[in-house]
Amino acid sequence: MLRKKINPVVVKTQKPAHIGEEMDLLSIKGFSGNAVAAAIKYQDRLDLGLLFSERPATVAATFTRNKVKAAPVLDAIGLLGSGIRQIRAILVNSGNANACTGGRGLEDVRRLRRWSADTLNISKTDILVSSTGVIGELLPLDRIGAAIPGLVAGLSTDGIERVAEAILTTDTVKKTAFRQIDLDGVRSGIYGMAKGSGMIGPNMGPPQATMLAFILTDLKVSPDWWQRALEKAVKVSFNRIVVDGDTSTNDTVLAMANGMAGNDPIGEANLGHEIEKILSELTMDLARQIVRDGEGATKCIELNVTGARSDTDAERVARIICESPLVKTAFFGEDPNWGRILAAAGRAGIELDPERLTLKIGDVELVKNGQGTGTKAEHLAKKIMKARDFDLTLDMGLGDGCIRFLTCDLSVEYVRINADYRT
Amino acid sequence: MLRKKINPVVVKTQKPAHIGEEMDLLSIKGFSGNAVAAAIKYQDRLDLGLLFSERPATVAATFTRNKVKAAPVLDAIGLLGSGIRQIRAILVNSGNANACTGGRGLEDVRRLRRWSADTLNISKTDILVSSTGVIGELLPLDRIGAAIPGLVAGLSTDGIERVAEAILTTDTVKKTAFRQIDLDGVRSGIYGMAKGSGMIGPNMGPPQATMLAFILTDLKVSPDWWQRALEKAVKVSFNRIVVDGDTSTNDTVLAMANGMAGNDPIGEANLGHEIEKILSELTMDLARQIVRDGEGATKCIELNVTGARSDTDAERVARIICESPLVKTAFFGEDPNWGRILAAAGRAGIELDPERLTLKIGDVELVKNGQGTGTKAEHLAKKIMKARDFDLTLDMGLGDGCIRFLTCDLSVEYVRINADYRT
Repeated sequence: MLRKKINPVVVKTQKPAHIGEEMDLLSIKGFSGNAVAAAIKYQDRLDLGLLFSERPATVAATFTRNKVKAAPVLDAIGLLGSGIRQIRAILVNSGNANACTGGRGLEDVRRLRRWSADTLNISKTDILVSSTGVIGELLPLDRIGAAIPGLVAGLSTDGIERVAEAILTTDTVKKTAFRQIDLDGVRSGIYGMAKGSGMIGPNMGPPQATMLAFILTDLKVSPDWWQRALEKAVKVSFNRIVVDGDTSTNDTVLAMANGMAGNDPIGEANLGHEIEKILSELTMDLARQIVRDGEGATKCIELNVTGARSDTDAERVARIICESPLVKTAFFGEDPNWGRILAAAGRAGIELDPERLTLKIGDVELVKNGQGTGTKAEHLAKKIMKARDFDLTLDMGLGDGCIRFLTCDLSVEYVRINADYRT
Repeated sequence: MLRKKINPVVVKTQKPAHIGEEMDLLSIKGFSGNAVAAAIKYQDRLDLGLLFSERPATVAATFTRNKVKAAPVLDAIGLLGSGIRQIRAILVNSGNANACTGGRGLEDVRRLRRWSADTLNISKTDILVSSTGVIGELLPLDRIGAAIPGLVAGLSTDGIERVAEAILTTDTVKKTAFRQIDLDGVRSGIYGMAKGSGMIGPNMGPPQATMLAFILTDLKVSPDWWQRALEKAVKVSFNRIVVDGDTSTNDTVLAMANGMAGNDPIGEANLGHEIEKILSELTMDLARQIVRDGEGATKCIELNVTGARSDTDAERVARIICESPLVKTAFFGEDPNWGRILAAAGRAGIELDPERLTLKIGDVELVKNGQGTGTKAEHLAKKIMKARDFDLTLDMGLGDGCIRFLTCDLSVEYVRINADYRT
């Protein structure tokens, strides 16, 4: 134990991998993947992916809290609710959300599980399905079914990166992250992929954004700790990002831990805190990639709200600011229009004393005691806003409540993308 | 009394007046107005207006519930809170909101009241001030002060319409409405003007958008009833419109009733209900004009939510849908993307059974029992959405709760306007 306390985790953080960049997936044992073009919505585009673990993997999951849940979400909640704690595979498609498709939609998910399981020679409760895409259309089961044999036949370690590509919709870049972990010589890793660009205002809870994320690790974990660790990581990352604030019917994060690294099981009593931190960093990394690739986004803004009466108050204020169309268009215009930010905070429905508000963009104090600090500061702030990424800090001067949110700007391109999405 | 019951109110509704159109302001006795170009923000643009009543007028008021309130709002709340129930005049400027301007901002409002009152030869508590425009800049008091003598000297009945022009900011059209009332031969009328195009998500309460509206009537009214009647009218009109959902620091509705029609005072016991109805129609008329002229708006959509478990639930769902960027961009794209509407409803945080949801655009049922009714319906819906104005009805199938909201689309032009507002 002492040895572990002295040098518990050696984490070699690698840069997020992007398309065309290599990363050491082989260091995570026992996972493979593949993706094919099944013509779900478009021709000649990867849209069907499979992630597979050689051995049963402990699964943790969070799903959208939207009351209108897609069929694959309902199906997965049902399976996990029935006591399933280990799975072998995740089947995922883009191009069709299988949401608002009623009983038929649910039957289709079960059929996909059965077909995939038969081909993989696993149980039909060893696989979960995720979908993203247009709401209200039935899945083209025939085309998906026809693609499954080739999907399974082509499984490989390198193929995992193809899945990260297959889940994209309006995304312009692939989103992956990787952390290598050395536990006293036991080499292991956590890999994550995510998609999400629009309908991003995730609000996920325990088995209960459309952002999808899949996390794979060969760590051995305690199942209860793994679920709690994922919930904590989602809470501080995906649940604190806003592109448009529209919580999706399909948001899903699934995390598989197959134990093949052979370590002592991670849990509250064994390195739980350290690995939670790494997992949260990984999900935050993916969350930031989602915001940076938000539909039409030209800016990624980190908003820190501090000095609120409670963290809940801080969250409410941060969310309202991050969703405000006037604030987001000002970001797009590189206009340090702090009045809009204060006005947004003021309508958050929480206690607030305007005369205690302080606002900084980067290191530039734009507002002090609720009033602007002058044109020089605005000029400096405008320069900061020319960058792709910048920080905002709103201090409310009332207490210790704080939170960090990520948001993007609202651009002309966002409107173009979404006025055209289905046509 | 019987006579009144038989034929209580003859209302001759006239079409909303637009720029260049005449209307019978003379039928409302005792009011005059004027507006001048005071170079508050731009040169050669009407930006300072004055409304004046020959006799003391009973005043009713609602103000923004935003915790960050502009100086003129704070000043007016203070005055009305001190017991002021009658005023003679309203001074209003555009181009500068006098918000987030601290103690100096408040002093400036008081100075403006005193200067105007002295010139008008009334008490400085007989006048209220309203402002709209950029947040965080001090009013150019010297230029406004210099303009006041000319403003007062030019007061006339026709000048009232000039005030309706002076209050505009990003608005593209003047917004006025008029109702003529005959009470057993006593001829009277209610006239309203409004401004508002962006930062529109009004949430106003009793003396406690930036939208501004001023209502003038020569009816004699019971003061308590007048305030309640205005609150009711604001609740069902201005508080149920969304352009961008950004509640302003300056939203203000002021209603002056100078009693010069000489009728028996209107109150609960005397025609209150009838006049409330007329007042609500008038404010709804103005509210619709605001939404139709929303920044960049190409569509005005009336959303009826029915069948909710309560009116409060209905309101929550309606507001979320009306503020959803994805729903609003679909309106702009004339895309009957009902999945986005259902997804928005699902994140409203209220009880909802997806399988009971029914959605109509105009008379076309797009969704039944939570599922799409097919491509033919979508094709018909798309045609309906080509119109400037159309209706949506979402029935939740759970109870009797209902509400009507008005919203507009989110267009490329909205983003352009707001990315450029200050520069």
